[in-house]
Amino acid sequence: MNRELLFGTAYYPEYMPYDRIETDMKMMKQAGMNVIRIAESTWSTLEPRESEFDFSYIDRVLAVSEKYDMQVIIGTPTYAIPSWLERKEPDVMAVTDKGRKKYGHRQLMNLWNPVFRAYAERVIRKLIAHTADHPQVIGFQIDNETKYYGNVGEQVQAMFREYLRETFETTEELNKAFYLAYWSNSIHDWEDFPDMSGCVNGGLVAEFEKFRRKLVAEYLAWQAELVGEYKRKEQFITHNFDFEWKKFGADIAQDGYSYGVQPDINHYEASKCLTIAGTDIYHPTQDELTGAEIAFGGDSIRSLKNDNYIVLECQAQAFKYWTPYPGQLRLHAYSHLASGADGIMYWNWHSIHNGYETYWRGLLSHDLSVNPAYEEACVFGQEWKKVGSRLMHLKKENQVALVVDNHSLTACKWFPIDRDLSYNDVVRWMYDSLYEMNIECDIVDVHALDASKYKMIVTPALYSADEETIGKLERFVSDGGVLISSFRSFVADEHLSVYPDTQPHGLHRCFGMSYNQFTEPGKALVKGKKVQFFAELLKLDGGESIADYEHKYWGRYAAFTHNYYGKGHAYYIGCYTEKDVIKDVYRTAAEEVGILQAESNFSWPVIIRSGMNQEGKKLHYLLHYSEKDRTVLCPYRSVQDILTGEIYRKGDSITLKDWDVKILEEI
Amino acid sequence: MNRELLFGTAYYPEYMPYDRIETDMKMMKQAGMNVIRIAESTWSTLEPRESEFDFSYIDRVLAVSEKYDMQVIIGTPTYAIPSWLERKEPDVMAVTDKGRKKYGHRQLMNLWNPVFRAYAERVIRKLIAHTADHPQVIGFQIDNETKYYGNVGEQVQAMFREYLRETFETTEELNKAFYLAYWSNSIHDWEDFPDMSGCVNGGLVAEFEKFRRKLVAEYLAWQAELVGEYKRKEQFITHNFDFEWKKFGADIAQDGYSYGVQPDINHYEASKCLTIAGTDIYHPTQDELTGAEIAFGGDSIRSLKNDNYIVLECQAQAFKYWTPYPGQLRLHAYSHLASGADGIMYWNWHSIHNGYETYWRGLLSHDLSVNPAYEEACVFGQEWKKVGSRLMHLKKENQVALVVDNHSLTACKWFPIDRDLSYNDVVRWMYDSLYEMNIECDIVDVHALDASKYKMIVTPALYSADEETIGKLERFVSDGGVLISSFRSFVADEHLSVYPDTQPHGLHRCFGMSYNQFTEPGKALVKGKKVQFFAELLKLDGGESIADYEHKYWGRYAAFTHNYYGKGHAYYIGCYTEKDVIKDVYRTAAEEVGILQAESNFSWPVIIRSGMNQEGKKLHYLLHYSEKDRTVLCPYRSVQDILTGEIYRKGDSITLKDWDVKILEEI
Amino acid sequence: MNRELLFGTAYYPEYMPYDRIETDMKMMKQAGMNVIRIAESTWSTLEPRESEFDFSYIDRVLAVSEKYDMQVIIGTPTYAIPSWLERKEPDVMAVTDKGRKKYGHRQLMNLWNPVFRAYAERVIRKLIAHTADHPQVIGFQIDNETKYYGNVGEQVQAMFREYLRETFETTEELNKAFYLAYWSNSIHDWEDFPDMSGCVNGGLVAEFEKFRRKLVAEYLAWQAELVGEYKRKEQFITHNFDFEWKKFGADIAQDGYSYGVQPDINHYEASKCLTIAGTDIYHPTQDELTGAEIAFGGDSIRSLKNDNYIVLECQAQAFKYWTPYPGQLRLHAYSHLASGADGIMYWNWHSIHNGYETYWRGLLSHDLSVNPAYEEACVFGQEWKKVGSRLMHLKKENQVALVVDNHSLTACKWFPIDRDLSYNDVVRWMYDSLYEMNIECDIVDVHALDASKYKMIVTPALYSADEETIGKLERFVSDGGVLISSFRSFVADEHLSVYPDTQPHGLHRCFGMSYNQFTEPGKALVKGKKVQFFAELLKLDGGESIADYEHKYWGRYAAFTHNYYGKGHAYYIGCYTEKDVIKDVYRTAAEEVGILQAESNFSWPVIIRSGMNQEGKKLHYLLHYSEKDRTVLCPYRSVQDILTGEIYRKGDSITLKDWDVKILEEI
Repeated sequence: MNRELLFGTAYYPEYMPYDRIETDMKMMKQAGMNVIRIAESTWSTLEPRESEFDFSYIDRVLAVSEKYDMQVIIGTPTYAIPSWLERKEPDVMAVTDKGRKKYGHRQLMNLWNPVFRAYAERVIRKLIAHTADHPQVIGFQIDNETKYYGNVGEQVQAMFREYLRETFETTEELNKAFYLAYWSNSIHDWEDFPDMSGCVNGGLVAEFEKFRRKLVAEYLAWQAELVGEYKRKEQFITHNFDFEWKKFGADIAQDGYSYGVQPDINHYEASKCLTIAGTDIYHPTQDELTGAEIAFGGDSIRSLKNDNYIVLECQAQAFKYWTPYPGQLRLHAYSHLASGADGIMYWNWHSIHNGYETYWRGLLSHDLSVNPAYEEACVFGQEWKKVGSRLMHLKKENQVALVVDNHSLTACKWFPIDRDLSYNDVVRWMYDSLYEMNIECDIVDVHALDASKYKMIVTPALYSADEETIGKLERFVSDGGVLISSFRSFVADEHLSVYPDTQPHGLHRCFGMSYNQFTEPGKALVKGKKVQFFAELLKLDGGESIADYEHKYWGRYAAFTHNYYGKGHAYYIGCYTEKDVIKDVYRTAAEEVGILQAESNFSWPVIIRSGMNQEGKKLHYLLHYSEKDRTVLCPYRSVQDILTGEIYRKGDSITLKDWDVKILEEI
Repeated sequence: MNRELLFGTAYYPEYMPYDRIETDMKMMKQAGMNVIRIAESTWSTLEPRESEFDFSYIDRVLAVSEKYDMQVIIGTPTYAIPSWLERKEPDVMAVTDKGRKKYGHRQLMNLWNPVFRAYAERVIRKLIAHTADHPQVIGFQIDNETKYYGNVGEQVQAMFREYLRETFETTEELNKAFYLAYWSNSIHDWEDFPDMSGCVNGGLVAEFEKFRRKLVAEYLAWQAELVGEYKRKEQFITHNFDFEWKKFGADIAQDGYSYGVQPDINHYEASKCLTIAGTDIYHPTQDELTGAEIAFGGDSIRSLKNDNYIVLECQAQAFKYWTPYPGQLRLHAYSHLASGADGIMYWNWHSIHNGYETYWRGLLSHDLSVNPAYEEACVFGQEWKKVGSRLMHLKKENQVALVVDNHSLTACKWFPIDRDLSYNDVVRWMYDSLYEMNIECDIVDVHALDASKYKMIVTPALYSADEETIGKLERFVSDGGVLISSFRSFVADEHLSVYPDTQPHGLHRCFGMSYNQFTEPGKALVKGKKVQFFAELLKLDGGESIADYEHKYWGRYAAFTHNYYGKGHAYYIGCYTEKDVIKDVYRTAAEEVGILQAESNFSWPVIIRSGMNQEGKKLHYLLHYSEKDRTVLCPYRSVQDILTGEIYRKGDSITLKDWDVKILEEI
Repeated sequence: MNRELLFGTAYYPEYMPYDRIETDMKMMKQAGMNVIRIAESTWSTLEPRESEFDFSYIDRVLAVSEKYDMQVIIGTPTYAIPSWLERKEPDVMAVTDKGRKKYGHRQLMNLWNPVFRAYAERVIRKLIAHTADHPQVIGFQIDNETKYYGNVGEQVQAMFREYLRETFETTEELNKAFYLAYWSNSIHDWEDFPDMSGCVNGGLVAEFEKFRRKLVAEYLAWQAELVGEYKRKEQFITHNFDFEWKKFGADIAQDGYSYGVQPDINHYEASKCLTIAGTDIYHPTQDELTGAEIAFGGDSIRSLKNDNYIVLECQAQAFKYWTPYPGQLRLHAYSHLASGADGIMYWNWHSIHNGYETYWRGLLSHDLSVNPAYEEACVFGQEWKKVGSRLMHLKKENQVALVVDNHSLTACKWFPIDRDLSYNDVVRWMYDSLYEMNIECDIVDVHALDASKYKMIVTPALYSADEETIGKLERFVSDGGVLISSFRSFVADEHLSVYPDTQPHGLHRCFGMSYNQFTEPGKALVKGKKVQFFAELLKLDGGESIADYEHKYWGRYAAFTHNYYGKGHAYYIGCYTEKDVIKDVYRTAAEEVGILQAESNFSWPVIIRSGMNQEGKKLHYLLHYSEKDRTVLCPYRSVQDILTGEIYRKGDSITLKDWDVKILEEI
């Protein structure tokens, strides 16, 4: 592991209009940077013609890095292929629902094509062999934001059929698992299994998606293994995980941001082959900067390996929407650290002058000169030089887990809650409510959940839950935990077949209620607030109503319920409404298991995120997401602001400027 | 014909998670049900491998049906094919504008492919031969919601070219009929007739659609003939006709409802081969339940054969939008009877646990237990046991016909009135106005119109009208009838070629006006109401203006006109505006021919629909589409509520609870 | 050149329901018409079968034209092909991103297919040879609204690769020009150049578009050359140029209007082969008639050859949206003349009775009788007979040029300013502001700009500007001109590669400011008005701020700047806001170079457009785009209204009725 906070940037000298490596390195050093990431999309530069390798620009960068004592992360270059490969072997391209992908964009290959694999293996081996021994190289990134690229090609389908055959053994078992008799889709010979691209059985399609996510994880493990053959022991292997992208703005532009759980790769599964997790997180800024995406992304990635991680791409200027206000770039940086990042790297150093991402602006504008963003990076770059060692390896022991599942995400595409309410909308609704209340949590994949670590578990729309998961949660509650589940949880099994008995399946006794009706909310209210998108009509059976619907006909049903079960509590949130209403539930629940702490006296835009630093000191990041100055009272016995040295005692006034940061170390 | 009111459900034991046929039948009997519909989408179960037939589950259902005295309708299973058929013979799939359909969904075959036909014929013959003699089997449904599935394959195109050649004989006649010289589309050898999938001549495309509708009718006749070879004399043949689907909600879900005239099959043409018409009608519920769709669908299907019909699929819980309020399921049921249905069957008995229609919920929820919907079905199931024989074979002799035409519907796609005003919007605007005023009507296909049966004829947007139709309507008025036509009527001939003379073609003398300008309404008003979408600028020529436009420039033109013509009246509605304005015209017109009756004192949400029962008694269904209680005064001399036995005399108060029903028999 | 004002119509007797050529000609003569345009879309009529030519209907029209002394323009019939050609040679169809075009629509050929060329050449030669000597024929239109039809077929791609190889010589130069190393897109052998249809490099895609525009110009030159071999010296060659179409209304209908710069052909380049430019201009009418589109189109087309032009298609009744109010058709006609048109011709004479453009209504409605539009055409047809010779060959010497560039237009598709702000939106925003202030301008292609002719140059979003253009503008200012540039000007070079130095590139000294940040405006205001879509954050460097942003953080930056540079002035408009704000800049700037004249005392809806007639008299068209009557004071010393003979002196009241026209000749 690295010995100092990483601060740096993706760096593409080959995208530059002229050679300015020395200039760039000098500017980076001046900003306090200590690391660059190179090479991950430059196959056509590294292998300009088939079998002709040219690592001269890599050598040049490494040499100058040595001169300026800059650490280097080497990316395998496989996520964008050279055109000669496509010309020679058209089958390396993925076939999607819309036909074979055309050359041009990145990330459109059939990752399981043996020819692609052979060429990829060769360039990876050559590059890693060439660089692994260089003293500046501290680690490797395998591929980038890898997914299955909508691949429905014959090869992948054949692998899927084989997987189904192994899993289900007989066609009858397959038919039964997915209810294929419906619309005459049952098969009675394996060879009659049809092309998946016309399939409309949500369960089977979701199985295909899950299967392809597994293949992606295997692909990354294959790359990690290759790199492992060459790397030095102390060098890390990482990958750049991204999140579901919320698109807005112009169709042809990249306008959008990191929103929620990624549908096309399972981060937990894929992270197993890494020595350290990495991620990119992009988020609204200016008046829309809330810190929620930074926290969500950080809590997700930290929880993968229950360890620190690197923000391999964080946002510099990006789109026109996000030109940072003064102070915001610094606030971004500390916000990442507050989630447990061991460093941040900009995407990217400079703004690119042509091509698809010309307006995904880097730290430098197109003029490649000093600008306000760069100047602000210099400010906290210098701060980190001084205090960085006290910020590294921040450890958290959160008592709350928010459980996510990309199979349930797929389920909610095929069985939509509402046109305007996606799985990730529910996830963010439940996560953001915790975040705004300053209740920190881990974001845990349902298959990675160790319930014994937590006092409170939250499940947003956990549509698909197998019996094992349901049993685990039931025991968690009966052993004294607090479970808070939203509508559309525990509906279906692992094949997305709805459980044909009392809902919520396997947990209706735990929740002390059941339902067999749900509805569009219409005019219904709950606690005076409009119910939106979806409402389950809950019938008490041992539990108690926290709130009934306010509605002529649905008034006889509960909307939110609570139940004492064993030593614990189970809360059920039967409908979507304003966040205030679930915050009330969280507050009550959190009080019951005693996890409300000093931070809970504050709420967004004053965010506090805490942890233990490597010296065993408790740190509290005080992050201020507002353009208005404000004064708060210190909730801690005695703390010192690492950045200014100022000391505060309980009740002292702490003045927060717009977009301000304090890092309070308990003393 | 059946001897009792049918009350039952579609039933798919093969879609069930476990065998519960006996349980289901017991629950059905308890609800008063007497019929199930089976088999219509289960080819892969019936013929699991090519040429291997397995009717064991049919036999099982029939055996249990006998035990519980449940009648059975057998559906031919052809609307969803097994995957082995597609694998063996890819050409059975329809080719559409988007290429060859992929296996997965239902209703994507090329119905004219000889291989498909051979396999379909065999499974139909086997199934009908196997079941026709069973005593529980009362009838057969051929296929389901059959259409041409967007088929533009070479085979269908060849049939179309042959049809054109037979119809027009010379290419010159073809060119002339459709004005093909435009944009160089004229042909001078039949072999130069191009692929229709690029055609942009609205008339020719519409001809192709009409031709394919005809092919669909022939396909159903072919199935009816096959079934006819086996069925017993008393067994009926029906088909499940559906309506144009108004989509809303999530793309991937089925959210939507039965809105208007069906574009892809001509019900009238197709119904000729049936012994009884059948239909499915889905409609908004909860706060949006108006009864209008139930009435529209019923009036349409009843008019096909001028006879009673079966609602083969009526809505149980369906989508989340339509979880019924208490009382609504019962109101739905009586509303269907009030239009002349001889029974209703739910789609479907149970909610399906996986696949495309998981959330098109049946009477039972996914837990397969007693629930509020089932309980309410039990209530009126028991009522029907008592009073059903007095409700059967309700006969109507309506004096008003609303004329519909799916060729005009197609016309309005290619020659849109407005982006936001479809043909069916105009149909529903004119129909719903009658419905809300309690003026009952038949909905008659333009080619089935016997004008002599009616006193009043309404034509919404009858864009395409051949000379015969125009002559028929002209004579109808001159003989004393009332014609009420909307804008965009009588514009074009049967090839959608606009008549090159005075508009409305052939009827401008009848209407006493003409126009050669029309416009987007802009700021124009009529009777103080905003004109929307379309306005014809009517010039009087013998007729009188009911209302002129209120507008600086268009004020010189009439918007609504009336004319005395022969012994009758002709009204013309030159623009779209609020329903109140056309209701005024209806009221005046109806008074003139004396068809306003007692019911006209009421209006929606109090709906009265009447008819003669099989005992020759006059029945009046009093249907209350409101959540507010209300009291009305009995408009009849002396009536008895069949359901409660209560007797009312003229002027007595009748109390209507929310979503209430009274069935008043004249005594 | 023609000796009298052209007044006429496109005429398609072959689209008529019956022979009425004599009737039509009589009606035309009665309306004062003197010219028809025929044949341009009638290949299948002229060559009904391969190699069989039939010019009989042409002969008929020419004969009757002679009888009625009607001039004729012959169109080459190549923009719509007969179906036999597609059947025989499927490769004549363009291949687009969506595959090979299907027969049916017009304008879907591969114009570079040699077979297409051979057939096209033959029919052109035959037709022109057949008609050139006829005394009525005054000129020829080559093809119609020609573009490249989205052609990405292999042939066009091969031509493009050849062009790139010739232009860049080495792949390294190519890579460098477009920054292809990004995402591994660099090539190192010419044969590795990939299929352009998957390309996402905005610069390279734009180069491909520019290249195809060039091919289109060459295609037209080829047709002009063919025609030139036959035509008499006095016969003209024209082409019908159209504008970017702003679509609204129903998808399937043609609802829309002529909005801005055409993306798919470069008018300037293509006009070189013509003897006179022609155009079609369609525009909103009724309450939305502003005259702006007529002026924009006229200023654009007049500037191509700096000469008069013909409006080959002007709007008769067109869509339902545009049924003209009384007076509007006449106002349209004079508005065209006021821009320098030497005549107008309706599209088209009659409304078509079937096919794609049935509701793109002509002067006659579908009833082919006298109607209000025709009657109004008669009015000004008669006026023109009297005064036409005084209106011909109107010459303008505008002092303002608005510079347009369809390469910058493409750039703004790939590098959008905003989802809701296109290049043409910026063009129209800057043009319409001038128009509404009565400052007349030429609209000049960036490659045709002779800066020495102008005192003021306006550049809307001139994203791509090569060094030559930048140098030209810099000298223009330093020599005393006024340059007014909007945001997103001078950003990138001719390959759309952003200049990697100070923005605005090459002109920051001229403007006295620079910027290296831009942003979504958020809450920013300028002069109290909301900034929309885009804001550059301008830092003064010698210049002065006209207005700063009103915003907590951006308030330190200027929004609008002015600089004295050399003998001239440079204004920069850094953001989009209401037109009032740029009008203020225009006013100040125009005053400085003394180009504000009497007309500037008026503003829309009173529009004055001026020029010198062929007798050397100064004419002022006073055009009134309002339904309200109004009185204005004569700003001229002494003028006479050509239409009424009335004389006005300075300060006299001139009464304008709704949609009124005065043509004031200085006396």
